[in-house]
Amino acid sequence: MEKKRVLIPGGAGYIGSHVVYTVLKTGKYNVAVVDNFHNSKPEAVRRVEQLVRDESGDACGDVELIEADLRDAAAINKVFADRPANDRIYAVILIGALKAVGESAEIPIEYYDVNVGGLLNLLTAMDKHDAKRLVYSSSATVYGAPETIPIPETTPMDPHSPYGRSKQINEMIIRDVCAAHPAWRAITLRYFNPAGAHPSGYIGEDPCGKPGNLLPLLAQMAVGKYREPGLKVFGNDYPTPDGTCVRDYIHILDLASGHLNAMVALDDDAKFVNAKNDGKYRAFNLGKGVGMSVLNMIDAMRKATGYEFPYEIVGRRPGDVPNLTADPALAEQELGFKAHHSLDEMCRDLWNWQSKNPNGYS
Amino acid sequence: MEKKRVLIPGGAGYIGSHVVYTVLKTGKYNVAVVDNFHNSKPEAVRRVEQLVRDESGDACGDVELIEADLRDAAAINKVFADRPANDRIYAVILIGALKAVGESAEIPIEYYDVNVGGLLNLLTAMDKHDAKRLVYSSSATVYGAPETIPIPETTPMDPHSPYGRSKQINEMIIRDVCAAHPAWRAITLRYFNPAGAHPSGYIGEDPCGKPGNLLPLLAQMAVGKYREPGLKVFGNDYPTPDGTCVRDYIHILDLASGHLNAMVALDDDAKFVNAKNDGKYRAFNLGKGVGMSVLNMIDAMRKATGYEFPYEIVGRRPGDVPNLTADPALAEQELGFKAHHSLDEMCRDLWNWQSKNPNGYS
Repeated sequence: MEKKRVLIPGGAGYIGSHVVYTVLKTGKYNVAVVDNFHNSKPEAVRRVEQLVRDESGDACGDVELIEADLRDAAAINKVFADRPANDRIYAVILIGALKAVGESAEIPIEYYDVNVGGLLNLLTAMDKHDAKRLVYSSSATVYGAPETIPIPETTPMDPHSPYGRSKQINEMIIRDVCAAHPAWRAITLRYFNPAGAHPSGYIGEDPCGKPGNLLPLLAQMAVGKYREPGLKVFGNDYPTPDGTCVRDYIHILDLASGHLNAMVALDDDAKFVNAKNDGKYRAFNLGKGVGMSVLNMIDAMRKATGYEFPYEIVGRRPGDVPNLTADPALAEQELGFKAHHSLDEMCRDLWNWQSKNPNGYS
Repeated sequence: MEKKRVLIPGGAGYIGSHVVYTVLKTGKYNVAVVDNFHNSKPEAVRRVEQLVRDESGDACGDVELIEADLRDAAAINKVFADRPANDRIYAVILIGALKAVGESAEIPIEYYDVNVGGLLNLLTAMDKHDAKRLVYSSSATVYGAPETIPIPETTPMDPHSPYGRSKQINEMIIRDVCAAHPAWRAITLRYFNPAGAHPSGYIGEDPCGKPGNLLPLLAQMAVGKYREPGLKVFGNDYPTPDGTCVRDYIHILDLASGHLNAMVALDDDAKFVNAKNDGKYRAFNLGKGVGMSVLNMIDAMRKATGYEFPYEIVGRRPGDVPNLTADPALAEQELGFKAHHSLDEMCRDLWNWQSKNPNGYS
């Protein structure tokens, strides 16, 4: 059977590379990665190809790697236009975006231009070249500081940062596109906190500069890359069991599988029968449904790495919310999604990657 | 005193041409119009220049007319880049947009690409070239179907169409830009229903095809351009005095004056002291604060034109809301804005334009 070509903008990044891996492993798809390597490296894609070949031989699909920026409408159009008739783009999994909450409040024009402007260039090209299936990376941050935990998808969106608003805006735009055209099908995935790596240690998270997220920071501390000025825990007076913020950590391979579930669901009309006014558009949480505090995670990483993390409790950080834990029931029921990996596996795989690649892909 | 250059994208359109006129008449500004002539004609700008010269001689500023599309980032950047040091862009009044509610639900990608993508290209160029004053055309449609009439600016945004959401999204983006950078200053103007024309009859509304709005349709019927299939009144069972929809009609020259009020207010820090978290960002209604029903307006246009409009009551039109009447108090208090013109003047000026230009600018 001929393989279908899936376009994955941002496929060289941390989440993207694991999604490319998961899509290729099915043996049903080829992939085209578009990336501007702003916060990623071509080496990640090379390693995914090697990993898939090592595991599955040549049965899996190929990867086209295209260096392009989502803001460049002409370049994005060209990705769809310059293709043989038997190798059109079948579906798009849009992962590439700017993603740092704090930075988004400093340079909002760039965040909106890349995230929203980039989506618009992509939608325009997809519409023109009749590639009307989209899986879109959204974020739990669209919920703001929700009252109900675990968080169902029906929670109103109320993001607290330009980054979060860029995700909310893109969900609004995609929903309107699906409502207008029956040929369009889209699923938005609201990520909770992805962490870990492929257990081979071949691919993993390689953030530029000091990691902004807790788990890669812990891994880099344990490996000796960051030790000073030490680990800060922002606030221990939140209304949570130990007073530190609670998040829903999901193994990166589970998150990646959710993309595959979503892409397959796009072709199942039954998934959209209850979304009347939105056309064929749905939004799903991707989380494990288990809340872990900052102190829980420090302890789990201590077990995985053997490193005793010294830490200091400091004041709350503006913008942090007490608890973001997913209600994953809808994705489980309707997409067949399940976050199988345990917390220990996540920490073990993260440490395996970090200890084998102390300087990431460099 | 050297005149400051104001950039007005969409300055060749109906609202835009009256804003260009109002800005030039102060004698304090030159104007640069950017337009793609999608729903406008260069002739409108030529007539504005002639009108200003006839009224005020050469004391008023000049107009640069640049044909460019807001979606073309390079062309928009060029507008700011290719300028002598003593003729930089001082402020931008962004009017150009796609604006048909019904059409926006048919072709949402185009609406978002032009309206939101266009704003992003403009903001990027403004930021790069240090032109950080913006007056932005929003719409009463951001309020959806509000419960409180007249509508204060504190009413939550809840637009019912992609067009309305493109306006809401742009307000969100502009607010975030102002919150991030103290050098940025922006005022959003939520238009109610502009109508009428300059009393000279030199400039006015010249919609492509059959007019989508009531007043230009009535004018074209009276002048004999549209008679068949006749006038339809969509619903007479709304909870309004005569059962037909109520709107807040504002004379186009009053609306245009509101832009001048807003542009002047941009430099007054006192206008922004209460907008702490938003930086120097404010949103104001531009309306008269007087609600008029469809039947009221048919009667007013009958008086102005002498034409007895035959009309037929038909069912409600999807998306119409019963009443959109502004509370104009905030703009009056804080911007010094006032809609001076009467309803009769509005109808008289509209008819003067239409009868002198039965085929618009053609």
